[in-house]
Amino acid sequence: MSTVTWNTKTRTKLRAAIERELGEMFAKRTAAAQAYGSEFAHLWSLAAEHVLGGKLVRPVLMVETYDALVEGATQSAPFQRSGVTASGVDQLPPCTDRATIIRLAAAVELLHYAFLLHDDVIDGDLVRRGRPNLIGTLLRESSQRSERAADRPDAGSTPDPRALHWARTGGMLMGDLLLADTHQIFARAELPHAVRGQMLDLLEHTITESIAGEQIDVGLCDGVIAPDLNTVLTMSAHKTATYTFELPMRAAAILTGVPQHLERALTAAGHHLGLAYQLQDDLISTFGDHEVHGKDAFSDIREGKQTAIISYARMTSVWPSIEADFGDPELTVETGARMRALLTECGAERFVRGLVEEQATALYEVLASAGNPQSIPPAARRVLLGLAAELEERRA
Amino acid sequence: MSTVTWNTKTRTKLRAAIERELGEMFAKRTAAAQAYGSEFAHLWSLAAEHVLGGKLVRPVLMVETYDALVEGATQSAPFQRSGVTASGVDQLPPCTDRATIIRLAAAVELLHYAFLLHDDVIDGDLVRRGRPNLIGTLLRESSQRSERAADRPDAGSTPDPRALHWARTGGMLMGDLLLADTHQIFARAELPHAVRGQMLDLLEHTITESIAGEQIDVGLCDGVIAPDLNTVLTMSAHKTATYTFELPMRAAAILTGVPQHLERALTAAGHHLGLAYQLQDDLISTFGDHEVHGKDAFSDIREGKQTAIISYARMTSVWPSIEADFGDPELTVETGARMRALLTECGAERFVRGLVEEQATALYEVLASAGNPQSIPPAARRVLLGLAAELEERRA
Repeated sequence: MSTVTWNTKTRTKLRAAIERELGEMFAKRTAAAQAYGSEFAHLWSLAAEHVLGGKLVRPVLMVETYDALVEGATQSAPFQRSGVTASGVDQLPPCTDRATIIRLAAAVELLHYAFLLHDDVIDGDLVRRGRPNLIGTLLRESSQRSERAADRPDAGSTPDPRALHWARTGGMLMGDLLLADTHQIFARAELPHAVRGQMLDLLEHTITESIAGEQIDVGLCDGVIAPDLNTVLTMSAHKTATYTFELPMRAAAILTGVPQHLERALTAAGHHLGLAYQLQDDLISTFGDHEVHGKDAFSDIREGKQTAIISYARMTSVWPSIEADFGDPELTVETGARMRALLTECGAERFVRGLVEEQATALYEVLASAGNPQSIPPAARRVLLGLAAELEERRA
Repeated sequence: MSTVTWNTKTRTKLRAAIERELGEMFAKRTAAAQAYGSEFAHLWSLAAEHVLGGKLVRPVLMVETYDALVEGATQSAPFQRSGVTASGVDQLPPCTDRATIIRLAAAVELLHYAFLLHDDVIDGDLVRRGRPNLIGTLLRESSQRSERAADRPDAGSTPDPRALHWARTGGMLMGDLLLADTHQIFARAELPHAVRGQMLDLLEHTITESIAGEQIDVGLCDGVIAPDLNTVLTMSAHKTATYTFELPMRAAAILTGVPQHLERALTAAGHHLGLAYQLQDDLISTFGDHEVHGKDAFSDIREGKQTAIISYARMTSVWPSIEADFGDPELTVETGARMRALLTECGAERFVRGLVEEQATALYEVLASAGNPQSIPPAARRVLLGLAAELEERRA
């Protein structure tokens, strides 16, 4: 087997294959939806546009890890997962069918988008990465329709409550449909029975943990759950790291049938990476140059988002000076800048940068055991190092 | 095999078995949820209470139909579904394991409750059958907590927006979890591969159709979709009949492996029954004695619900007299009574009663082909007749 090098060309081809799979799925669903009326078909075609416009980070990570583990295994140890044999041939991974791997990777993207949709419904968000999300698109269409009907072009910026309700319901129902589709793909994957069971276990664990994380996030935001640092860190890991990093890497481990200690090492690596990314995101939102990161400056402070930065600041003497304006939707740029300076001054910025450093170090420790025969094989280490390099770039 | 008679005792035992299965599932989930904090575990235990307080109509129907089809098949034709054999033994249904049947029936109830939860989030409902639903319960708890915190006992009836947000998010997330669990049970059912595939097809069809129906219902309510009679009837069938009647009966057909023409006959019977029940529900809400049906009098008129009754009235000359007050949340009892009289006067009541009669007749035609060797076997007819009798009682 030739050595897989994750150059741009290989990744572009892989992304194209995942896009093709997703495109075909959505085309089928949209065609079948016609039987239930034009609004239902339209909802499917909008969802297709939004999913296919994504970066497909998670499915790409899954397949890259799969390929790296296959390469590593053929170079060193054979596939040897206790209790699982792929049709009795221990030298082959339990899943070698490229179509199945690509379909499962596409399912990982559907799950991500289902979570995004329900997250947007819960947060009342209409925009993602500076463009209208699915709900925002439905709202704009519906508002334009009622303005035309009422012959009032551009009736203003306050959305009609009925149009908003219609749009949010669309996001909610499409999230349900894609959550169902994710399960259908996992359930029907052509895999040995025991391996399909492991994939279903992984899906169940991922969904439970991500939803538990979302519940804590909302509880923090609604003042139901106390925002202590441990809770905020746990929430960050559960809500994002679990499905973004751990799910793709563990799926690859299961599909290649590598030994379980290797799956555990990948899980640990995914956890450290995921938490580091999330904390780095919080740092960028709060302290970064908004012209570079492209988000609204001070949006986290304005929304009253309970981040690790804020949890640390709460424990310091400057908190009373921050608290009064924290979560004020009318926050001015001046107050925002003053609060940002206080968050640096009280040590919160330094503390969270230290947490990112800790997670990065923990990741490198997982990677460091190169002499250990049970360590992550070199090709898979390269995948993780690629992600670590992106993290370091964001830290710079 | 002894003849199954659906007396009260048999049904009570069956319901107890389904309750036990659901109870065990929720107990496991609640225990595992502790790892994610007390709020997550509490959400699971509340969901358990609400699900176990239900009537379990759908899972009971599924198992009763299963038993009736098994009895019918052993009395007359053998199990013979083209392309499917149960371990090569054509005289046995593809699923004879009672635990599997009960678990799948429990999954049908989880799906029902997931739909109810998301429906309640969409409609903003806090009450079901006169008692707080899951969202209402979470809201009450959360409001009491913040009143205690603010030392303002019983701070009034306007709910705190953050408490409401927290409560609705709980309903949404639990709906997601139970939708996932339904799929997990279908995906892991110990069935021959082809039969599990059929069950997954059925689940996919049911979810797509129910969600399409929900979207139309919301579109009617939000004024995005025109409330013509055909659309309203289609919506009623998709939103309710598909998962309440067709899903349990078709699942039973698949698990017993009866010929496909029999599954089609059961699907047709389920469709007619489901639509008749829904239309009868609309009649009862609008024209029934609210002291008997237990709902708020005129709630459908007050909410502006687009029923077949209203669609018919729209086509008559009295509509302008109804339209002005239709959907008025402040509707008085006097105006409500006047509108009800107009809906009778314009022929809408008679028309919808005629539709119920049509669906009942269509059901009896499916049952009537007793001499036909391909007809529904007597035991399964008795299950359908039991449901038809309940319908007739509601019509009386």
